[in-house]
Amino acid sequence: PVLIQDPMSISWDDATWIMTSSFIIFTMQSGFGLLESGCVSKKNEVNIMVKNAVDVIFGGLGYWMFGYGMSFGQGAGTNPFIGIGSYFIDADEKEMGSIFATYIFQLSFATTATTIVSGAMAERCNFLAYCIFSFCNTAVFCIPAGWIWRKNGFLKTLHVVDIAGCASVHLVGGASSLVAAIMLKPRTGRFDHGIEPPPMGSPTNAMVGMFMLWWGWLGFNCGSTFGVSGHKWKYAARSAIATINSSVGGGMAALTFSYIAHKKKFMILDFITGILASLVSVTAGCALYHPWEALIVGTIGSLVANVTTPILNKLNIDDPVGAIAVHGSSAIWGMLAVGIIVEKDSLLSLSKGNAGLFRGGGWYLLGIQTLAAIIIIIWSFACTFLLLFTINKLIPIRMSLEDELAGADFVEHNIRYEWNTPSKVELCTIK
Amino acid sequence: PVLIQDPMSISWDDATWIMTSSFIIFTMQSGFGLLESGCVSKKNEVNIMVKNAVDVIFGGLGYWMFGYGMSFGQGAGTNPFIGIGSYFIDADEKEMGSIFATYIFQLSFATTATTIVSGAMAERCNFLAYCIFSFCNTAVFCIPAGWIWRKNGFLKTLHVVDIAGCASVHLVGGASSLVAAIMLKPRTGRFDHGIEPPPMGSPTNAMVGMFMLWWGWLGFNCGSTFGVSGHKWKYAARSAIATINSSVGGGMAALTFSYIAHKKKFMILDFITGILASLVSVTAGCALYHPWEALIVGTIGSLVANVTTPILNKLNIDDPVGAIAVHGSSAIWGMLAVGIIVEKDSLLSLSKGNAGLFRGGGWYLLGIQTLAAIIIIIWSFACTFLLLFTINKLIPIRMSLEDELAGADFVEHNIRYEWNTPSKVELCTIK
Amino acid sequence: PVLIQDPMSISWDDATWIMTSSFIIFTMQSGFGLLESGCVSKKNEVNIMVKNAVDVIFGGLGYWMFGYGMSFGQGAGTNPFIGIGSYFIDADEKEMGSIFATYIFQLSFATTATTIVSGAMAERCNFLAYCIFSFCNTAVFCIPAGWIWRKNGFLKTLHVVDIAGCASVHLVGGASSLVAAIMLKPRTGRFDHGIEPPPMGSPTNAMVGMFMLWWGWLGFNCGSTFGVSGHKWKYAARSAIATINSSVGGGMAALTFSYIAHKKKFMILDFITGILASLVSVTAGCALYHPWEALIVGTIGSLVANVTTPILNKLNIDDPVGAIAVHGSSAIWGMLAVGIIVEKDSLLSLSKGNAGLFRGGGWYLLGIQTLAAIIIIIWSFACTFLLLFTINKLIPIRMSLEDELAGADFVEHNIRYEWNTPSKVELCTIK
Repeated sequence: PVLIQDPMSISWDDATWIMTSSFIIFTMQSGFGLLESGCVSKKNEVNIMVKNAVDVIFGGLGYWMFGYGMSFGQGAGTNPFIGIGSYFIDADEKEMGSIFATYIFQLSFATTATTIVSGAMAERCNFLAYCIFSFCNTAVFCIPAGWIWRKNGFLKTLHVVDIAGCASVHLVGGASSLVAAIMLKPRTGRFDHGIEPPPMGSPTNAMVGMFMLWWGWLGFNCGSTFGVSGHKWKYAARSAIATINSSVGGGMAALTFSYIAHKKKFMILDFITGILASLVSVTAGCALYHPWEALIVGTIGSLVANVTTPILNKLNIDDPVGAIAVHGSSAIWGMLAVGIIVEKDSLLSLSKGNAGLFRGGGWYLLGIQTLAAIIIIIWSFACTFLLLFTINKLIPIRMSLEDELAGADFVEHNIRYEWNTPSKVELCTIK
Repeated sequence: PVLIQDPMSISWDDATWIMTSSFIIFTMQSGFGLLESGCVSKKNEVNIMVKNAVDVIFGGLGYWMFGYGMSFGQGAGTNPFIGIGSYFIDADEKEMGSIFATYIFQLSFATTATTIVSGAMAERCNFLAYCIFSFCNTAVFCIPAGWIWRKNGFLKTLHVVDIAGCASVHLVGGASSLVAAIMLKPRTGRFDHGIEPPPMGSPTNAMVGMFMLWWGWLGFNCGSTFGVSGHKWKYAARSAIATINSSVGGGMAALTFSYIAHKKKFMILDFITGILASLVSVTAGCALYHPWEALIVGTIGSLVANVTTPILNKLNIDDPVGAIAVHGSSAIWGMLAVGIIVEKDSLLSLSKGNAGLFRGGGWYLLGIQTLAAIIIIIWSFACTFLLLFTINKLIPIRMSLEDELAGADFVEHNIRYEWNTPSKVELCTIK
Repeated sequence: PVLIQDPMSISWDDATWIMTSSFIIFTMQSGFGLLESGCVSKKNEVNIMVKNAVDVIFGGLGYWMFGYGMSFGQGAGTNPFIGIGSYFIDADEKEMGSIFATYIFQLSFATTATTIVSGAMAERCNFLAYCIFSFCNTAVFCIPAGWIWRKNGFLKTLHVVDIAGCASVHLVGGASSLVAAIMLKPRTGRFDHGIEPPPMGSPTNAMVGMFMLWWGWLGFNCGSTFGVSGHKWKYAARSAIATINSSVGGGMAALTFSYIAHKKKFMILDFITGILASLVSVTAGCALYHPWEALIVGTIGSLVANVTTPILNKLNIDDPVGAIAVHGSSAIWGMLAVGIIVEKDSLLSLSKGNAGLFRGGGWYLLGIQTLAAIIIIIWSFACTFLLLFTINKLIPIRMSLEDELAGADFVEHNIRYEWNTPSKVELCTIK
């Protein structure tokens, strides 16, 4: 979000926008849950939804305890790398409006960042280990979020442009996903018969999840103006058309890609990957793009992701829901795109007086956008590796082979699918 | 929407309402997707969701390229029939707020209009042909939308009242559905054993879809005041109670109808048809009805739709999700209802000083409402026929018999349901 | 909702908040539907969704006809027990804004209250009897809602604090559920093999439903400030963080409880029960709690509910979705918690100058909160008993054994699951 003002100057009109947007963003958890649940095999479809709930529960605990402070703390010792203070956030009556409205909005971003990784770890990650990961991973997101959005964050000082969390949410999530997928190793038997992915447990649920994410993204991008007063609503409106136009480009690119790459079949996972990737890639500059620019950004973002997936598969990196491609590769493109395409804006100066390479701004903006992406990738790699490595010493992060084959729904939640399916009952009757 | 003002006078309070409403309306795509997916047979349930996504993608492209301009363009050559200019919509910083907020709201209407037709074409329409149709069909909606809502549109000049798109969205969609269903011919075997519809693939999903549409409709109708400033919020509040009360009437009528017509069974499709039809029929005058009037309008709208369905079936017109009945017949009633029931309003003069037949307004309002309905039906018939006829020359719009029997989920998306169902695995284990 | 002002003073900023919140609350109907549908066995999953729709239809009719008047009527004869007037609510143009905005918000609460009971009656309640119950039950909610929220309501005069309907919505629903579950008797065979619940028909759908309720609850609690102008938005922001933090505590408590009570398994129903119970328990004081207080309130609320469930089972009280535990026990705790924990607030004086026992307020607040809970429990017990007893004379509320075994989906809606499952088709092919 663009904290373009003293939070204390938030009016109730701004608060309405901020809170409504955050409520919309929370619905994205339902979307992620359904998408991931639909992508995995039936025997894990409930467990992955529980993991998405855990992201709000343990992620929410961590964000309240230390995450918000790491990002936006302004206490003694706050430096360009990390915020200090505001732990276990609370506020008196005078300040509670602006602080809590800011908190709830930022929290909706934080829980999203962790949820991304749950997809890449699906079907083979121990549940308890995941709970610990979910709690700690908050810090992995919160520190770079402060770099980009805290007043004295070092990337903010360099004038990096990341309006709705392309680097801090998606690239962190995507890069962490890559490390997690490598460390967890592929699902048993995943690459035994080539690189084609196993069938999705419920393509219909996955599509519903994608739909929910699509509309939730409007809250994500438009809410990032962090208000409507003054000129902010105008940027919010531009974010809306950029978001939709990006997905228009991304959807067309995905259909075209799949038609060519998969012998005239429109694969559901390619389609979902393309649309979500286009939405990821537009986040960095959503409030700054012209509609036609957003269309191009989305088109390229979609292709980047869909080209990434087969490469990962060939490297035997198993990412059941495509989190690395969607949130990693496309987010890199999203950060670069700002450095290439964006024009200088005058009303709120979200681009800080800089412009992209093709807009006469020279190499500066592209340079810092690239730098931000590289730093955040390295950060996420290192932190996630250390985190999972440490957790693995406590609780093995990989499920036992027996548990994996039985499925987490049975192992963790005692769900026996044969009790549930009516066809089984009928089967017995027939026999 | 009621463009009761110069768009340049939109305040940020209005923008908040307009954008929030449009975000809610976009969730209706999830609703349409689930509803249609639940109504068709399992072998097509994913494909129909992809088609709903295509409506946003290709419909969104068309609306950006030419649709918005056809509806609301004000360039040289604009006339009562069609708007000119504003193609590939863009805006400078000064105007972007009002133009993009208006655009995103209108776009949410436009994508809905196309989605309606996808239901009537379900289970037998070629996917590629549908993509082309979805792109071009935008014009079929946009031109009459301009007649009703553009400042110099010829139906607007006549003072036709259509607040939330009863004629321009639903009647266009319903009439196009009728033509499409006739041209595509029934699904193979549909009427071999009488007129009873085949079982729904997932009545639960269809019900969830209906629920989503229900709440989305509040955004649809209440957002159509196009703001909250001045007296607008009062009409928005009246739209809310009218919307709910209409569905109250529609739901009761549907339960009663089904109880009588289907030997004390409450058929799910009748129920969904009735509720959605009541919501359609209240759209034309939503901000003008008293609560008890809305109840009556919804009750009649529900019955009109539920009576239409068996007639269509007897004519062997195959409409898998009931789009013609819900969006066609009820929309005709909705347009007429305004001409019969509506009182003159004074705050914003949405009824343009006219009143309905029963309210001492004489025949004028009823006359022009009827005229608008007739013109829009003829327009939609002609355009959709020409469009599908032309597309059919390029790509046969009807799937091959072999493809139809195999189902679009397999043919287009390579989804093999036997791989997915756990019962199958268990089956093998048992044997 | 806190009607802290003359409704006539509602501004359009307030109206935007009130209406947006109510639209969000309506989405909770989808959540309740999916949750209940996922909890029951497959043979009833559609019927329970229809019952949820019926709650809006017949509940909406009742609320319009007499419910709103019973709660908020101010006509001659209005007394501390019941409001008089405002039946068949309507308004002229001058007043329609505030009256209809108020109505739509209160309606969203009313339909929720009835829906709660549908869960406890699932799988064995006659559908027609339920429709009558749904219509009449509105009064059971509306009268105590007036006690708490109408200007001269006797509990309001005593300064009972119930910001978002902990007692009037949830406790009424929970207590009514207990009576209904006892009167309906357990599902056939429910306790034949011990107290373990039968498997959920679709844990995935139940989880999606829980997610939808979670985000909808933000509208429920934050909307209850009934506006954003003045200091109201600050309380709305505090409600948001309290709501989320409560669920954080509730989720952790539920995972811990289930891990201990169910041999290291995380049971889905325990998890859902815990999260929803925490959300229920925070409603009474949502706008007044500090974040850490909300965490504690939610933790205890979650445990209270999860301890209640096995007790009910041991008493052979069959509540298929856990409505009594979630909305009953936790709501009692929620009312008491205010009396124990809440500090005096100064901006809007929502606590009416009182403070909880631990905050130096003495026993008064705890006393009246307890009193309110007791009175509302007795009221709900008595009314629901009388209501169901009377309906039972007209139409037996319990389904016949034959119908129950066949399932309401077939009996009421003619849904034959064997027609729908693809595995069956394949089965035939294989044989």
